[in-house]
Amino acid sequence: MARWIRFAAADGALRMGTLEGALVTEFRGDLFGDAVATGETFALDAVRLESPCVPTKVIALWNNFTELGKKLGKAAPVHPLFLLKPATSVIGSGAAIQRPPRYAGKIAFEGELGIVIGRTCANVETADAEQYIFGYTCVNDVTAAEILNENADFAQWTRAKGFDTFCCVGPAIATQLDWRNARVVTTVDGVERQNYPLSDLIFSPAEMVSRISGDMTLYPGDVISVGTSLGVGSMKDGARVCVSIAGIGELSNTVRA
Amino acid sequence: MARWIRFAAADGALRMGTLEGALVTEFRGDLFGDAVATGETFALDAVRLESPCVPTKVIALWNNFTELGKKLGKAAPVHPLFLLKPATSVIGSGAAIQRPPRYAGKIAFEGELGIVIGRTCANVETADAEQYIFGYTCVNDVTAAEILNENADFAQWTRAKGFDTFCCVGPAIATQLDWRNARVVTTVDGVERQNYPLSDLIFSPAEMVSRISGDMTLYPGDVISVGTSLGVGSMKDGARVCVSIAGIGELSNTVRA
Repeated sequence: MARWIRFAAADGALRMGTLEGALVTEFRGDLFGDAVATGETFALDAVRLESPCVPTKVIALWNNFTELGKKLGKAAPVHPLFLLKPATSVIGSGAAIQRPPRYAGKIAFEGELGIVIGRTCANVETADAEQYIFGYTCVNDVTAAEILNENADFAQWTRAKGFDTFCCVGPAIATQLDWRNARVVTTVDGVERQNYPLSDLIFSPAEMVSRISGDMTLYPGDVISVGTSLGVGSMKDGARVCVSIAGIGELSNTVRA
Repeated sequence: MARWIRFAAADGALRMGTLEGALVTEFRGDLFGDAVATGETFALDAVRLESPCVPTKVIALWNNFTELGKKLGKAAPVHPLFLLKPATSVIGSGAAIQRPPRYAGKIAFEGELGIVIGRTCANVETADAEQYIFGYTCVNDVTAAEILNENADFAQWTRAKGFDTFCCVGPAIATQLDWRNARVVTTVDGVERQNYPLSDLIFSPAEMVSRISGDMTLYPGDVISVGTSLGVGSMKDGARVCVSIAGIGELSNTVRA
């Protein structure tokens, strides 16, 4: 099992590498193909993290946890329900969530598991889907809550969730995760706000990759953010929000006005 | 005024150029910056068209024409209502609209004007927005009609409209268009199905670019598909559907089972 990151060191150049404890080992090449260690290492506190992959698209699910569906009184879907967050919304751990200049309303956090695609896939079967998964990361699916239902005729999922910096991804991609025994924990200014088990997922990662790969071709680095569960809430300007999953690490971002 | 295309000639290599009548003049360089004529020319019927630009995202609007809004009984929105179609859905004129292997239902056409962004823009004012528009193209915003409202809790806009090949773009980008005096005409197997004036738009191109650039950063080549008006309908497998706007040309695609 490896934890992959992308980072900038003192010279500002973007690099990739693996993270073990506080040691970053640099690699070059193709993250999803042949990556080769360069021999260089860095201390984690001497680098700036970027999002660990560069998705062409982020597929974000709604109503994919039994407990949240029950609370909202929504039936379990028969196919993943999703919107797209644009690539322009993606930031890494440590970067600021920027309040949109034209929006003064509430901004919500949603701590989620992210599936990172490793190989191009279209119309794959569930039984084969695992081999298209490169690994798992944490996502904060940030939402301009007051925009979502502002128009009675059209739920503005993409607009509310698509602002620049509204898709926090990281800190790392763990190539293996025992997701059935993992939990998503979200804190705001150190106070726990979400702590829910991934075993409560309606669609498993393999089912999601299979079904969504029938809706659109998925590319290496694309991210499926699997939806959130109980405990979603809003963050004040200046708040520090952390999403963590054991085995992946802690994704930490601050809201900037 | 120029009409820009991307195309493959006999050698299969992708090229770009301008189209005058049936004459293609090849250019190289940056479509949105310095493009230089290579001196090579081709006959239009000796090349295969590709989508004239390569968008990182396609922003597709709903309820943006007064007449269609009236017919549907929907109030005019105060901000553009949109979804994202993924880059994987984009094809050019002449390419086949592929029926998704896992979908047996109706497939609808929606003839639309497409705005092609020419310069990176974020939070631009309406008065400045025109300078970020590179030009205009035709779009067929293809839709798997029976998926859209399949789930009562969540309108599946992106899933219904995001399948590979479901965003036909082309045949060319016209760098100027007197859109207030232009009409969108859609035919299916030669029979006219849509013929509506762009003067009926709720948000003008400049208003769309200004407002949407406040929702997400727009990049050169990104496309805003401005929404459709009266006459949307479905296409049988094998049908040939054409969307044309005078000054841009005819976007022609066939549905393949």
